[in-house]
Amino acid sequence: MFEWLTGATRLFAILGDPIAQVRSPEIVTSALQARGINGILLPVHVTPDAFDDVMAGLKRIENLDGLILTLPYKARGLGHVDSLGREAMAGGVINAVRRGLDGSWHGEMFDGLGCIAAMAAAGVSPAGKRVLLIGAGGAGAAIALAVAGKRPAHLRIAEIDDDRATALVKRIAAIESDLPVDLGPADPTGFDLVINASPMGMADCPESPLLRPVTASTTVFDVVAKPNETLLMASALANGAMAIGGAEMIRGQVNMIADFFAQAKLDDEKDWI
Amino acid sequence: MFEWLTGATRLFAILGDPIAQVRSPEIVTSALQARGINGILLPVHVTPDAFDDVMAGLKRIENLDGLILTLPYKARGLGHVDSLGREAMAGGVINAVRRGLDGSWHGEMFDGLGCIAAMAAAGVSPAGKRVLLIGAGGAGAAIALAVAGKRPAHLRIAEIDDDRATALVKRIAAIESDLPVDLGPADPTGFDLVINASPMGMADCPESPLLRPVTASTTVFDVVAKPNETLLMASALANGAMAIGGAEMIRGQVNMIADFFAQAKLDDEKDWI
Repeated sequence: MFEWLTGATRLFAILGDPIAQVRSPEIVTSALQARGINGILLPVHVTPDAFDDVMAGLKRIENLDGLILTLPYKARGLGHVDSLGREAMAGGVINAVRRGLDGSWHGEMFDGLGCIAAMAAAGVSPAGKRVLLIGAGGAGAAIALAVAGKRPAHLRIAEIDDDRATALVKRIAAIESDLPVDLGPADPTGFDLVINASPMGMADCPESPLLRPVTASTTVFDVVAKPNETLLMASALANGAMAIGGAEMIRGQVNMIADFFAQAKLDDEKDWI
Repeated sequence: MFEWLTGATRLFAILGDPIAQVRSPEIVTSALQARGINGILLPVHVTPDAFDDVMAGLKRIENLDGLILTLPYKARGLGHVDSLGREAMAGGVINAVRRGLDGSWHGEMFDGLGCIAAMAAAGVSPAGKRVLLIGAGGAGAAIALAVAGKRPAHLRIAEIDDDRATALVKRIAAIESDLPVDLGPADPTGFDLVINASPMGMADCPESPLLRPVTASTTVFDVVAKPNETLLMASALANGAMAIGGAEMIRGQVNMIADFFAQAKLDDEKDWI
């Protein structure tokens, strides 16, 4: 059963606090093996006071090629990389890191791209749509920037932290200067697409993030992956609307991150020639 | 294929330089899973300049419960534990570390016990025997102390480094004060059991460590695991003697180390109640 696990197996790790709920170790490991990489994604539970020590230690392991960062480390990871990809630069957060050809560490953010990919798989695109995004945290900012890149007709951001909300609007304006972006309440009236990127809907705050339910003409995308069907999604489905859950976003990201890691492997192989 | 790999999987790691040749990740992982522990032993390649940083980082991972140290880290590991078991105290080296109930790290050395277990599995015991041990390095010292605990009639140690040899004899005398222990050449004449704990016999120094071949009445135990049959073993077998190889010692250690790690898990479970 474990014949594949040898002294030459390459290591990847997902760091978070908590970590027991993550499903990516199985899924990403399968995706790596499917790409011909004898690699494994490990769940690594690290508390905030230990994060810097653990990152420093993991990065010095010769056969560790990549890291995924989940809550609450998407912003703190920035301090541990040497270069950033396009999405990470725009959003100021990362959720994946790989070791490059020269031994330096490169960070990228796949939350936004994963959201777009999951919507595309369901036949939904933000292009030309009126989009309400709830939450401007790490995932919210990444999704906002990815959505902005698809040129919606209007992007409204609902976020309780004013500073965070204002900073995100400025960041979008710097990249997509002519896009109508504003701040407002979590009211879905008049929007075609509602994206929840706040933690509301998780087991410990199960309420819907919306001030009122959506109607049948509004599509809902909920980043929350557990439970599979949040109150927001259940309410949308009950009203005849389409609802896409966080599990789809994870699926959308897995292949992107496995490709990102596989590239590190290819770089390494070049190095070994 | 990877359904067992969840966010709740417990981590164990074997650290060495090099590491690609080790077989314990598969074997120890199977032994852990057979004990009902959803754990995995990872190969961790760490260079000497990175060892302290990697140890510090790994020890701060909440779901990492134990470490195995292989060449060249059996002595350096001492600086990273809070307490030592009986074998480790006697030998001054460790090859396994586990996290205890209170979060402290406990080290133990299983090379000697693994050797005794492998001999026992073949029906051989050093008790009452005239034993010649070649090599007083980390494994040699551990085996010497484990053999001494079995009360041989005579224990001779052949070691080219005089200081190391003398230190080991003193250490044995402190524990088994009335045991006949001395230093001498690697000559098997008059010995019932010859144990090679030197690196001689490995691919890069394939010679036999003995000055002359053994006769049929002498049993040979060779710590060297690769190749499966060393020159020493081949010569002993050709002369009608019994020969036990290093692969058996690894097998003997695996169950002990898995039990040692399993105990850490039980401690943790108590803690969680």
